[in-house]
Amino acid sequence: MTVKAYGALAADKPLESLDITRRAPGHHDVRIDIAFCGVCHSDLHTVRAEWAGTLYPCVPGHEIVGRVSAVGDHVSGVKVGDLVGVGCMVDSCQHCEDCEAGLENYCDGMVGTYNGSTPDAPGHTLGGYSQQVVVHERFVLKVRHPEAQLAAVAPLLCAGITTYSPLRHWNAGPGKKVGIVGIGGLGHMAIKLARAMGAHVVAFTTSESKRQDAEALGAHEVVVSRDASAMAARGKSLDLIVNTVAAPHDLDAYLALLKRDGTMVLVGAPASPHPSPQVFNLITKRRAIAGSMIGGIPETQEMLDFCAEHGIVADIEMIRADEINEAYERMLKGDVKYRFVIDNATLAA
Amino acid sequence: MTVKAYGALAADKPLESLDITRRAPGHHDVRIDIAFCGVCHSDLHTVRAEWAGTLYPCVPGHEIVGRVSAVGDHVSGVKVGDLVGVGCMVDSCQHCEDCEAGLENYCDGMVGTYNGSTPDAPGHTLGGYSQQVVVHERFVLKVRHPEAQLAAVAPLLCAGITTYSPLRHWNAGPGKKVGIVGIGGLGHMAIKLARAMGAHVVAFTTSESKRQDAEALGAHEVVVSRDASAMAARGKSLDLIVNTVAAPHDLDAYLALLKRDGTMVLVGAPASPHPSPQVFNLITKRRAIAGSMIGGIPETQEMLDFCAEHGIVADIEMIRADEINEAYERMLKGDVKYRFVIDNATLAA
Ligand SMILES: [Zn+2]
Ligand SMILES: [Zn+2]
Ligand SMILES: [Zn+2]
Ligand SMILES: [Zn+2]
Repeated sequence: MTVKAYGALAADKPLESLDITRRAPGHHDVRIDIAFCGVCHSDLHTVRAEWAGTLYPCVPGHEIVGRVSAVGDHVSGVKVGDLVGVGCMVDSCQHCEDCEAGLENYCDGMVGTYNGSTPDAPGHTLGGYSQQVVVHERFVLKVRHPEAQLAAVAPLLCAGITTYSPLRHWNAGPGKKVGIVGIGGLGHMAIKLARAMGAHVVAFTTSESKRQDAEALGAHEVVVSRDASAMAARGKSLDLIVNTVAAPHDLDAYLALLKRDGTMVLVGAPASPHPSPQVFNLITKRRAIAGSMIGGIPETQEMLDFCAEHGIVADIEMIRADEINEAYERMLKGDVKYRFVIDNATLAA
Repeated sequence: MTVKAYGALAADKPLESLDITRRAPGHHDVRIDIAFCGVCHSDLHTVRAEWAGTLYPCVPGHEIVGRVSAVGDHVSGVKVGDLVGVGCMVDSCQHCEDCEAGLENYCDGMVGTYNGSTPDAPGHTLGGYSQQVVVHERFVLKVRHPEAQLAAVAPLLCAGITTYSPLRHWNAGPGKKVGIVGIGGLGHMAIKLARAMGAHVVAFTTSESKRQDAEALGAHEVVVSRDASAMAARGKSLDLIVNTVAAPHDLDAYLALLKRDGTMVLVGAPASPHPSPQVFNLITKRRAIAGSMIGGIPETQEMLDFCAEHGIVADIEMIRADEINEAYERMLKGDVKYRFVIDNATLAA
């Protein structure tokens, strides 16, 4: 089946309207008519080949929401008409230790929603900047938010789970002080989620201008990271930091804010390394620097349900598909509050 | 009371025989006639002012064992004649959250056994390269090994607890694969301890010549870290790595050996930073790099008792006090298996 999509034919080309094909649904497949797709920084990095290995044509998009329009004969979890989501993965080996643990995101055979390996044409997966997608049922999430919120649910599928997973894994909750570094697509979700989990939330930003926004998102305290005395006043006070900033920066300034046994979790991978953190800052309080990548499928469903229950969605700016190149330029300037979401109905135009 | 000691009067001076004074035991103090003192790399770094802030005269030594020769009137835990040990600390604030948790090693007011702040003359603490030491009872450990092993018990007070604590904290034990990086003073203890805890132990060394020794110490496998295929064969196989190498080195090579949720614990702080580890290696398997420093007093007693029960001591080479400068030179070349221990009886000479 041929559908409309938006993608790039080469690293130095803008995204443009493309025709792509989707496989007929197999026994365990779900076909989704995509309503909205969030725009993630990974989309931009991949389509411009800023990370190694981009295959073309490249159709990005891994914050997908829509409605089921067909299911294979063995599909039991969803039915035609259901509101569903697809995140960063569309397949995995489904039998390794990680998959058995519901942590398909850490499976060596994890297949990304775009630029992943697939027998389907053209040999690599094509993402959510398209009218439809066909996905194994294991990787299809149920959306229980009101349909009116559907566009704002889309970013939960990457930005939401990427921050929810470390917050849960490292036990954010009542009695815990949690720092969130960076107030962008990931950070704004992290603030909302940590607050809803019951933690005391301290947001860190480079920009005084974001103070009010961060408070409105739910931060109990906002610290401008260049304010040395404000930073020093928070020394050894945090149980957990979720650091969403992918640009190389000084990690030591944040390590010093962790209590004994505190962990700073990095959820963004910089293109060039951060300045090397001082081992002294780890040793003296048994602190840790960890990484976390997206989240598993059961945890993603848990996150969606948690968000539906707490009325949490992303703050979004809706765009037409043909505005995507301009949206990328604005993303690079940090000029979005806080996530662009494509209205996939505009792909037909 | 004036006693003989061995120390340095300046960073560029060799250690020499000195007379120092010890306070009369207070209500909670224990006076120890020191029998043996282990020689730690920290001694060398401090006495040569390779770390900031060395005060002179500097008398190093924080792997102290000996016999109680006097106790204050409120001391209840030990009595004259007992075999005891003192490690890296001789005091702390004794009331903060860390101290309450028995983790005096992480207390901001922790007082090191040498070069720490004290009202005693000369205003900073003087360590175990001396005939006697006077210590608050809280920081005095009971030695339950046979007296014949006393010299080889001394290194347990720093090298032993420094490796025991992270092995216990990160749950080394049956069913776990534990990597030990570096086979020196710390590493040789880590191998013995991890083996005794029931873990599968993989030792990493830069030198093929250490293979047999590492096996004799208890390693189930020995990997020469320059052997790329041997390293690759252990990819994603380890639950925990205790990295004892303080010299700057490539951490990524070891991170890649950790399973999902594995942790590499650094127990040595390099003078200049390690090359910055790749965040990608943390994110893709939710791995962590952590630090750990010595261990708390209850845990140190637990470690000594564990070692007594399992017949574990350090492998040592005994020296006279006046051989210490030569011993430092040999330590710098890695020419010791695996810990020098001073026979403090030779201080009287
Ligand atoms: Zn994303
Ligand atoms: Zn798998
Ligand atoms: Zn030491
Ligand atoms: Zn304390």
